[in-house]
Amino acid sequence: MTRKRIMSGMRPTGSLHLGNYFGALDNWVKLQDEYECFFSIVDWHALTTGYEDTASLKDHIIDIAVDWISAGLDPERSTIFLQSNIKEIAELHLLLSMTVPLSWLERCPTYKDQLLQLREKNIATYGFLGYPNLQAADILVHKADVVPVGEDQLPHLELSREIARRFNYIYGETFPEPQARLNQIKLLPGLDGRKMSKSYENTIALSDSPDSIREKVRQMITDPEKIRKNDPGHPDICSVYAFHKVFSELQHDEISETCKAGGFGCVQCKKNLAENIVHFMAPMYERRQDLLKDTGRIYEILTHGTRHARKIAQDTLAQVRDRMNLLELE
Amino acid sequence: MTRKRIMSGMRPTGSLHLGNYFGALDNWVKLQDEYECFFSIVDWHALTTGYEDTASLKDHIIDIAVDWISAGLDPERSTIFLQSNIKEIAELHLLLSMTVPLSWLERCPTYKDQLLQLREKNIATYGFLGYPNLQAADILVHKADVVPVGEDQLPHLELSREIARRFNYIYGETFPEPQARLNQIKLLPGLDGRKMSKSYENTIALSDSPDSIREKVRQMITDPEKIRKNDPGHPDICSVYAFHKVFSELQHDEISETCKAGGFGCVQCKKNLAENIVHFMAPMYERRQDLLKDTGRIYEILTHGTRHARKIAQDTLAQVRDRMNLLELE
Repeated sequence: MTRKRIMSGMRPTGSLHLGNYFGALDNWVKLQDEYECFFSIVDWHALTTGYEDTASLKDHIIDIAVDWISAGLDPERSTIFLQSNIKEIAELHLLLSMTVPLSWLERCPTYKDQLLQLREKNIATYGFLGYPNLQAADILVHKADVVPVGEDQLPHLELSREIARRFNYIYGETFPEPQARLNQIKLLPGLDGRKMSKSYENTIALSDSPDSIREKVRQMITDPEKIRKNDPGHPDICSVYAFHKVFSELQHDEISETCKAGGFGCVQCKKNLAENIVHFMAPMYERRQDLLKDTGRIYEILTHGTRHARKIAQDTLAQVRDRMNLLELE
Repeated sequence: MTRKRIMSGMRPTGSLHLGNYFGALDNWVKLQDEYECFFSIVDWHALTTGYEDTASLKDHIIDIAVDWISAGLDPERSTIFLQSNIKEIAELHLLLSMTVPLSWLERCPTYKDQLLQLREKNIATYGFLGYPNLQAADILVHKADVVPVGEDQLPHLELSREIARRFNYIYGETFPEPQARLNQIKLLPGLDGRKMSKSYENTIALSDSPDSIREKVRQMITDPEKIRKNDPGHPDICSVYAFHKVFSELQHDEISETCKAGGFGCVQCKKNLAENIVHFMAPMYERRQDLLKDTGRIYEILTHGTRHARKIAQDTLAQVRDRMNLLELE
């Protein structure tokens, strides 16, 4: 029995953090058992909002590859590849664009939102408007059956399905309509209680060392009313407790009770948390140290994965060109 | 001294006629002496308005190749190639799209015009809006210095220059700004006096045989007031005379005078014209008969030209990716 195929991707915009891990990556790692997985570093997508400054793009690509593999994406089982090295995706993007009504893209809920939010970035471009069409090309070029998404990505995936349906209607059945698989999410706030985000500088990066994790946790702000260690605390307003719910799952009720009863101080509580995070991240840390001993290996993995992904993309495009009656020379 | 490079293209939408010849092709043929020429059969462009019916696309590609070569485009001196077989053009289209403001495309004078004119064709698509960006990719991928255009195409070429300038500004000097070279046009009406156009069925096709030309000319309507052959005619309102101005250049004053004086009849006048057209088109006709003896040769020419064009496109894209800091694997 052939396994169903999964496709997903992330933009290379810098080191990943635990928020990214629990939002998506954690799911991807688990999906590898059940599905044939394609994970794409979508550097062309990074250009849609970051074309004006690409100085760090290459570093970010390597960073995200290291983050992924450290986090448990397994190049032996899954295909990890670089979008921009598969020209067939650009070709499919162009071919699909001929059939896609402008209004579908203009009505995409994130489109006008982002135009406003990223006003200083000059992103009112043709490429930015076409981002959901490029995403459809990413998915359809590998004929993915299933796409793991966050809830906010559902409209984009619906658009990919419509684009597939329209192509199939005009040129004959070619693409499966990709189905959504909602990510299971563990909500982890940032170190300061806001959303974890690089721009707030409140993250624990997947690349943080154990000592850096310990130091970041040590500096976390706890309940301001719990001054001495025997003062009763309010775990529900304490970021440290929000972290405990994720990293000290089995004991978190007990931690809550003890905190409320003034049974231990915040310093001790944070030390416990830090060790639990360090323990949780230990396998990632080890894989990372291994990988970084031989950075050539990272390029090898990307090259190997990209070749495999390209082969499939070439087959799809041969079929697409045939359906569209394009002439193939040679 | 290296010759300057010229790039131009036509959509494969059916057989060319004498209107197309005198509007553009005639110029291309002459430019071959002075420039290094790239002539592209732009089948992707044909999709922007014709994606819903591609059944004849392959035939049209061969037709236009035969028309071009018969008309005098010389595969030994010029590069004749098929756009869709050069994926680097799709890649450059995508990369340029990241930097091109939507408003530049929306403001393109032909855009809203065509949306209205071709209402029944569902062309309000993402691809149709992006057509001038694809045209810029066509031109820039070969770093063309000069583009021969009709006056109506000037705004598109200006847009290509702006797109080149913007890329150069963001990523460093990469593309020459392509200069326009206005086509020298001989105005030839259709057989019925209206604009020569396939949709009016008033054309002489480049593929018409001598006998078919004679028959078409025989049926042309002349001055309705000149009924008998000695009646004085009005050459200025006669389509046949408009044709004489192009095909009987040296004698056209004499023809006009004789017609006005009732010196000959319309039947004779049309016979003379037909023979002049047949004579003018004889070299085309011969080259066509030669080509059609060995249709494999047409594919060979296209394959050879496309390989050469692809090689240059690959070099350009390697440079473009480098300038944009994209990571190249392998």
